[in-house]
Formats: sequence, C-alpha cells, structure tokens
Amino acid sequence: MAEEQSEQTVTPWEVSTKSETGIDYDKLIRDFGSTRIDDGLINRIEKATGKPVHHLLRRGVFFSMRDLETILTLYEQKKPFFLYTGRGPSSEALHLGHLIPFIFTKWLQDTFDVPLVIQMTDDEKFLVKDNLPLEEANRLAHENAKDIIALGFDVNKTFIFSDVEYISSSRDFYMNMCKIQKHVTFNQAKGIFGFGPSDNIGKICFPATQAAPSFSSSFPEIFHGIKDVPCLIPCAIDQDPYFRMTRDVAPKLGYQKPALIHSTFIPGLRGMQSKMDASGDPNSVIFVTDSDEQISNKIKKYAYSGGGTTAEEHKKTGGDCGKDVSYQYLTFFMEDDTKLEQIKQNYTSGKLSTGDLKAELISVLQKLISGHRQKRERVTDLMVKKFMSPRELNYPY
Amino acid sequence: MAEEQSEQTVTPWEVSTKSETGIDYDKLIRDFGSTRIDDGLINRIEKATGKPVHHLLRRGVFFSMRDLETILTLYEQKKPFFLYTGRGPSSEALHLGHLIPFIFTKWLQDTFDVPLVIQMTDDEKFLVKDNLPLEEANRLAHENAKDIIALGFDVNKTFIFSDVEYISSSRDFYMNMCKIQKHVTFNQAKGIFGFGPSDNIGKICFPATQAAPSFSSSFPEIFHGIKDVPCLIPCAIDQDPYFRMTRDVAPKLGYQKPALIHSTFIPGLRGMQSKMDASGDPNSVIFVTDSDEQISNKIKKYAYSGGGTTAEEHKKTGGDCGKDVSYQYLTFFMEDDTKLEQIKQNYTSGKLSTGDLKAELISVLQKLISGHRQKRERVTDLMVKKFMSPRELNYPY
Repeated sequence: MAEEQSEQTVTPWEVSTKSETGIDYDKLIRDFGSTRIDDGLINRIEKATGKPVHHLLRRGVFFSMRDLETILTLYEQKKPFFLYTGRGPSSEALHLGHLIPFIFTKWLQDTFDVPLVIQMTDDEKFLVKDNLPLEEANRLAHENAKDIIALGFDVNKTFIFSDVEYISSSRDFYMNMCKIQKHVTFNQAKGIFGFGPSDNIGKICFPATQAAPSFSSSFPEIFHGIKDVPCLIPCAIDQDPYFRMTRDVAPKLGYQKPALIHSTFIPGLRGMQSKMDASGDPNSVIFVTDSDEQISNKIKKYAYSGGGTTAEEHKKTGGDCGKDVSYQYLTFFMEDDTKLEQIKQNYTSGKLSTGDLKAELISVLQKLISGHRQKRERVTDLMVKKFMSPRELNYPY
Repeated sequence: MAEEQSEQTVTPWEVSTKSETGIDYDKLIRDFGSTRIDDGLINRIEKATGKPVHHLLRRGVFFSMRDLETILTLYEQKKPFFLYTGRGPSSEALHLGHLIPFIFTKWLQDTFDVPLVIQMTDDEKFLVKDNLPLEEANRLAHENAKDIIALGFDVNKTFIFSDVEYISSSRDFYMNMCKIQKHVTFNQAKGIFGFGPSDNIGKICFPATQAAPSFSSSFPEIFHGIKDVPCLIPCAIDQDPYFRMTRDVAPKLGYQKPALIHSTFIPGLRGMQSKMDASGDPNSVIFVTDSDEQISNKIKKYAYSGGGTTAEEHKKTGGDCGKDVSYQYLTFFMEDDTKLEQIKQNYTSGKLSTGDLKAELISVLQKLISGHRQKRERVTDLMVKKFMSPRELNYPY
C-alpha cells in the first residue's frame, strides 16, 4: 500500500499522485537530490535580514533548495546576486497557484534588494500546446505580465521579458542559448525531461532557453558583461529538471551554478492528488479574474473537504487538515499564524464546521483577489512596456 | 561489383564514395527524389533570359532541381522571386568548392535581377565542431563574407547575415524558426539527417534555422511583410535534406515551398572519391588564399591523374577524363567550351600529356585565384557592414 500511495509524477508538464494527502515531498527531495530547508537555515535568514521570514517559507511552502546557503553567505558579505523566475503564458488569466512564486519572489526582492529577471516563455508554450498560435502566446505574455506587475514589483529593479522578443533582440542571450545547447545531448535531455521521438525539435531544444537567464552574461543591459553574478531561482519544484540541467552545464561554460528555492504545489480545488492546473478542469481552479461570487461558488461546491460526512460525525471525529483543500489554501494565503493555528485546532477537533472553514477561506480569497484585480486595472500598457524593455536597472554593475 | 561501386554517402556532414569516377549522381537523384535538369529546361531558360546559360549549368555541374520550372514560369510572367544560399563559416579561407555555388548564384542574380539572401551559419558550425568557439565562428562569418562580396555581388540587391547576429535582431526570423521547429519531430529529423542520441540538442534543432530563410516573411526589411514571395535555392546537393524538410513543413505554415537547383561537388585533389573538404587533408584542397606557387605545387604533386603510368603508355592508351581531377577542375573553371573540348579529345587520345593538362589547369586557377585575391583585398570592413545590415534592397515590396 505504501508503494501504491507513493506513485507520483512530477515533471514540468504533469504533477499528480494517487495519494489523498498529495505529493510526497520527502520522496521528491530524495529523487531530485535537493535539500530540505530546515529551521537552522530559516533562523540564519532571519538573523541575516533582521526580520521574520515570509509565511510561505515559515510554513514550508518553500521547502527545498540547492546552494541557498551560498547565496546567504554572499548576502552576509554584502556581495551581489540576482533573482530569476518565470511564467509560461498559456492562459489569459493567472490562477492562485501561479501567484505563489511571484508573491514570494516579491518578498525576496524587497528583503534582499537585488535585480530580478522574469522570463515569459511564449515560445515554449507555443511549441508544447496544440492550439496556441505563437502570436497569441506572445500576447498572453503581455497580459500575464500585467498580473505580475500588479503584485508590486519595483520597475527600477525588475526586467520582465518575452522569449520571442528578447531572444530576437539580445545577441548575448542567443549566444548563451547556443552554448548551453552544445553541452546537452538528446539522450541527456531525454533522461531529464522524458522526451520521446514524437516530440518536436523545438520542445527538445527549449531547456537551453529556460537555462540561459540563470547566467548574468545573458543580460548585458543589467550586468554590463559581468559574467559571474550568482543567481537564485525561486520556483515550484516541477521546474527543478531545467535547473539540474543548467547546474550540470554551468561549469563547462565557466559560469556559476544557479541556486534554487523550491515551492510545493497548490492543489486543485477537487483534491490533493493534482496541482491547480489552468488547462485542466476549470472548476478545480480559482483564477485571479474570478468574481467574489465565482470564488464563493467554486469553494462551496468543489473544494474537497477533509471533514466528516455528516455534521454529527464531524463534531465527533473532527476534520483532517491534511486532506482538506480549504485548510491547505489558508496555509498559503492566511498571513496570521495565530488565527491559522486556532482554525487548525478547531477543525481537527470538530468544533469548526466545514462550512465555517470554507467561509474563512472565501473571505481571505475574495479580499486577496479583489485587491489584485484593482491593482491589475491600474497597470497600463506603458508600464508593461517599461518593465519589458531591456535596460539598466538601479544597480551599479 | 556494381553494388560495391555504388556505395556512397551524401549528407550535409559527409560526402564520399568508393567509386573512382566519383559520386553516382543518377543514384542521388533517385534517392533524393529530385529531377535532372534536361536540355529542354536549359533551352527554356535561354529563351526566357535571352542569353546562353552559365557554363556550370551547361556542363551539368548544376544538374538537379525541384520546382525550377515554377520559378521560370514566374520569371516569364514578370513575377517576383528571390534567391537564398548560404555558407558554414568553419575556416578562415574558402576553397574552390565553396566558390561554385556563389559564382553560379552571382550569375543567377545578374540574369534574373532578384533579391538575394546569404545565410552564414556561425551558430551551426559552433554546434557541430569540437574546437570552434562561437565568437570565432562569428568572426569567420565576417571573414568569409569578404570572399563572397569579392565575387561581385550587388550590395543593393544582396543581404548577407550571420545567424548569431540576425536571429538576435529579427523577431520575424525567430518566430519562423519556432514555427518550423514545431512541425518537425525528433523522429523526422532523425530520418532526414541521421541524428543519434549523442547529438547535442542544438544540432538537432538547427535544421529549422536553415529552413527559415526560405520564407520571405523572415526578412521584413526586404519584403515588408509579404509572405508569399517564392524562393529559389542554389546549393550543393548535400544540402538537399534541409530543404526536403523545409518543403514538407512549408504548406503547414501557409508558405510556399522553396525551389532548388543543385550542384555536384568539386572533388578533392587526390581523387573523385570525396568532395573538396577544408577540414580534411590540406593537400587535397586549393584555398582561395593559396599563392601561385602553392597552386602549382599542389596540382603537380597531388592532383589525381587519369593518364597512363608512363609517358609511353599514355601516348598509346590515352587518359581517362572521368577519373582525372585536373580535367574535372577545368570543367568547373575553364569558360571556353571549344578549348575544353579540344583538351578532352587530346587527353583522351594521349596527344596531351598529364603535365601539359596540369599546366593548363595551373594557369586557369592562378588567374582565377590571384584575381579573386586582388578583389578580396579591396573589400573593406565598411562594405562587409553594409552587406550584413538588415535593410531594404533595391526592390519595391
């Protein structure tokens, strides 16, 4: 049974498990060879930055890392690094899961005060999707950039770029792509990503494009040719294969290996067995464009409950927070630790009903998403253009 | 024995045969599915253009084609098309074999008065060579462009581009690359090019980059977004796999299939079994940088002779022009048909000695190459920059 429960798939294109309690992240750490973030490291971050860490880190949503200590040592020595994250623009609107890495990245940028590059992989989405024209993927990159900008990134410290636009305007970026491509064989790419003979050649070659932003030499406008500025990549752990590959290749090019900080996945509304997925069942997804009513309806109707099957049973045996999607969402989005702990105790004991738990979540998400919607409406095309223009940032390189 | 003699390999990376009389081009036409250029087509070209065809076409050096009639019909109807050819910049100097497609392309441009794009595949040479840094391949692209410019191309009608430079400056070109990549699976690329699991992902993806210039939409500066200007590609027949693939993909993108006109290979000095190859035995290659003395020495020492083993035997049995490299070279570079025919008769009968035949060739090549050297010296960096700048050409699109 243990064997069956651990059957899980985590790739950049699929995240699923048969287990009711979701992905086994300990197994993932073992399989991928990354390192769990422990209390010692969290304490060290709080000491170095002089403030408490973000709740997404404190609660283990960001739970795994590679070489994060190295980045922290640099910060302690007042040496520079930069942040890199990304988004695959395959849908008009972002969903809650998409927000997580960006919310945390914003906190990293505010806390460490470093340059940030955000890659919009419009080329890859075109290459892997059946019905997405390249021009449309590029348009979605701009639409999605608005959602990212709405989270409050500093335009003087952040460069957002579409692959289609930046590759066709940056010789240094394209040269790094070629150099990475040369050091990855088909067999290696097959081993890392599971490519098969029917995959198109663009998809097979794309990992080099996602690797390139890990190197400061890909951004001459920001780093003025300095090739050894180290990089920290906050991302969901399904993106780790790209950066395992990048870390293998980096020394062969004389570059630094990027460091990583990995998040878990936010589950779909219908249960812990899969991550929230924009191209899957729409009733399992909460989009940042959903109205208050849609949020309320979706959670009431579809959010998988870990509570008892009847009110009486629930009062007697209590709820299971590990399987309860509404509770899990609160760990991502309710900032107040004390209140969250109280909800956990009351739900586990049966004192708090599923309906009341859902009401808490509905209130938190309506506030988060309506706030986001208002901020997004204030993002103009001109602001998008500014964020997406290759340019010097407010850092003296 | 017939079977053994027909054992030949013709790929973009290797051309060789066991036959003393060289590649079996009839077999190649059958294998590749192209069409031999016959007298009827040559007559039609002469009628349409009102002048005799180039000796490289008349003598069957350009011997095979795809859809050349379509291009000719367009010309007869005074409709536009454009020319596309290329060069892989893997060596400092071009050799005689490299000149052939460019000499003929120049004639095509002069005769048909159409735009010409020349792709310098610096990225691919880096991806397939063991010891060629990308920056060096890019430098060689500029060096080789000087040799191409020296052949007399019209700067107002010709755009020479390095992949590294143009891909990183043209969104339309990069978007066409992505669109082509999406329509070629690994299996298809493997079938066409023989890629294996140890090939790097850049090499596997590159065919899309060589395909992209076949489409006028890749050059908005020249064609201002007009997507259906047909393309004629003059090239050695080993490049045909790239364009078979391109012709398969074109209709899926709503583009025209490019037409082709294929040349044979100029053999290496040491015999008809392999093409002249800059990265092979240097004594089998005549470079455009060779001095008069080097040309003379190489031909005297290394040019494979189809003559008798002794002067007496030669006088009695005569020479075999089909195996004689010096004679074969004259078919490429001696313009005078009458003189060439006389040499053939005299050599075949034994009246002309191998030494005298070689002296004829030495004289022709010394004149050709010293003339080329002088013209190349007059090519300035500014001229290279002009030819290699994306810009409007002298055609109203």
